[in-house]
Amino acid sequence: MDGDFLKEGETLDDLQLKGLYVIQKKDAFRFGVDAVLLANFADIKRNASVLDLCSGTGIIPFILVGKTSASKIMGIEIQEDMVEMANRSVQLNNVQEKVEFVHKDLKDLEYLKTLPKVDVVTVNPPYKLKNSGIINLKSKDAIARHEIFCELEDVVKAAKTVLKDNGKFYMIHRPDRFADAICIMRKYKIEPKFVRMVHPSLNKAPNMVLIEGQNNGGHFLKWGAPIYVHQLDGNYTDEINRIYGR
Amino acid sequence: MDGDFLKEGETLDDLQLKGLYVIQKKDAFRFGVDAVLLANFADIKRNASVLDLCSGTGIIPFILVGKTSASKIMGIEIQEDMVEMANRSVQLNNVQEKVEFVHKDLKDLEYLKTLPKVDVVTVNPPYKLKNSGIINLKSKDAIARHEIFCELEDVVKAAKTVLKDNGKFYMIHRPDRFADAICIMRKYKIEPKFVRMVHPSLNKAPNMVLIEGQNNGGHFLKWGAPIYVHQLDGNYTDEINRIYGR
Repeated sequence: MDGDFLKEGETLDDLQLKGLYVIQKKDAFRFGVDAVLLANFADIKRNASVLDLCSGTGIIPFILVGKTSASKIMGIEIQEDMVEMANRSVQLNNVQEKVEFVHKDLKDLEYLKTLPKVDVVTVNPPYKLKNSGIINLKSKDAIARHEIFCELEDVVKAAKTVLKDNGKFYMIHRPDRFADAICIMRKYKIEPKFVRMVHPSLNKAPNMVLIEGQNNGGHFLKWGAPIYVHQLDGNYTDEINRIYGR
Repeated sequence: MDGDFLKEGETLDDLQLKGLYVIQKKDAFRFGVDAVLLANFADIKRNASVLDLCSGTGIIPFILVGKTSASKIMGIEIQEDMVEMANRSVQLNNVQEKVEFVHKDLKDLEYLKTLPKVDVVTVNPPYKLKNSGIINLKSKDAIARHEIFCELEDVVKAAKTVLKDNGKFYMIHRPDRFADAICIMRKYKIEPKFVRMVHPSLNKAPNMVLIEGQNNGGHFLKWGAPIYVHQLDGNYTDEINRIYGR
C-alpha cells in the first residue's frame, strides 16, 4: 500500500481512525498530542467549512475528516514539500472531495481574501518566540516550533481575514503565551470564549492551553475542566484514551 | 474580650493565626476562601510595604500581618462603617504599628499619589459586572460582589498609581473575567507573571484565578499547579488544610 505513496525518509502512520493514515518525515517534526487534542477540542458542526493554518503534515484536517461532518477542510502550509506530502496523504486516504492543502504563506492576506469565508479556523502554530534559544532557521523542526515564518499576531490576523461573522477559532498554545494570545485575539475582535488547560498530570502546572475564540463574540470566558494527560501511575487518563480511540 | 470591641450585629472571628481576630457583620459579606487564598498566594518580602484595595473587613491585611514580615500594610475601603470596623479589629489585635485602614475611594488617584509607593498591592475586588443580575445597589453584599463603586480597570489603575517600579500586584478574580484582567493589566503595564487556577475539586472547571502581576515586568506568564479546594470525598485537600493552618 505504501509503495505508491511514500518517498524515502517518510513513514506512514495509522491514525486508528476510520482507516486514515498520515505520511510523516522520519527526521522532521512529527505530530504530537497537541494536534490530537486540538482536533478533538474543535466543535465542528455538520457541513462546516474549515481552514487549518500551519497545517504541516495535515494531521488536523485528517483527524477532522474522520471525526466530523465538515463539508470542506483546507490546510495552508508554507513549506512546499510538506504540502506535497500532505496532498499525497489526501490521495492515499481518498478524501480529495473534502480535504485539500495549498502551499501559501498565511501572511498573504490578499490571497486569503480570495477564499470563501469559513465557519472554523484551526491552528497549532509554532509556540516559541523567534529569538528563544539557538535554532537553525532552515530546519523543519525549528519552523514548526519557532515563530520563524509567522508570529502569533500573523496567525490571528489570518484567521480574522477568513472567518465568517461569529465563526470559531480553535488554537492550542503554550500557557506562557496565553496572555499574548488573549490580548492579540481581542485586538482583532476574535473574543476568547472557552478555555481548557492541559496538564501532564494531576498537581502539575499546565503545559498546553486549548482556546476557542469567536469572531466578533461578546465578552465572557468560560473554562472547562482540566485535561490531564497522565494518571499518577504514569498511564494515560481515560479522557486521553477516549480521544485516541483506545 | 469582645465586649469593648463589638457592636450589635457583629461577630468576632478567630483567624487561627497567631491569635488574630477579625470583626465581621453577621448579615453582610463575610470573608471567604478567596481572601485566604489570595493572602497566601501573595509573596511578601521582609519589610515590604503593602496596600490592600477593596479591603472590606480587613481580612487580607490581618492574614498578612500574621504570615509575613511586611513592615506596613494599609487597607483602602470605600464603605465608611467597614473602615471603622476594620480599625477596631486593628485595636483588638494590637497591630496599630503595622496595619491601618483608611476610608477612601480607590478612584481618587490624587489621594493615591500622595502615598509613598508600595512594594505590593493586593486586591480581592468585586467580581461581577455592574449590570449582571438584579441587585440592591446599597447592600453591602452587592457592593462587595458587584462593580458598583469600582470596575476592574479602576482597580488596576489604582495599583499602577501606587506601585514601585517592578512592584507586585496580587489579585484573585473569576476565571470568566480572566481575559479582561489580563488585557487591562497589560494596558497599564502591570504584566501578568504568574497564575494559579483554583478548582472546587479535581475534574471541575476552575472557579477562581490567582494572578500575580509585576509593574513594568517583561512578557512571560508562568503557571503554577492547580489548587484543588476539595478532594473527591468532599474533604478539604492537604493544600487547603495547610493554608488554613489545620
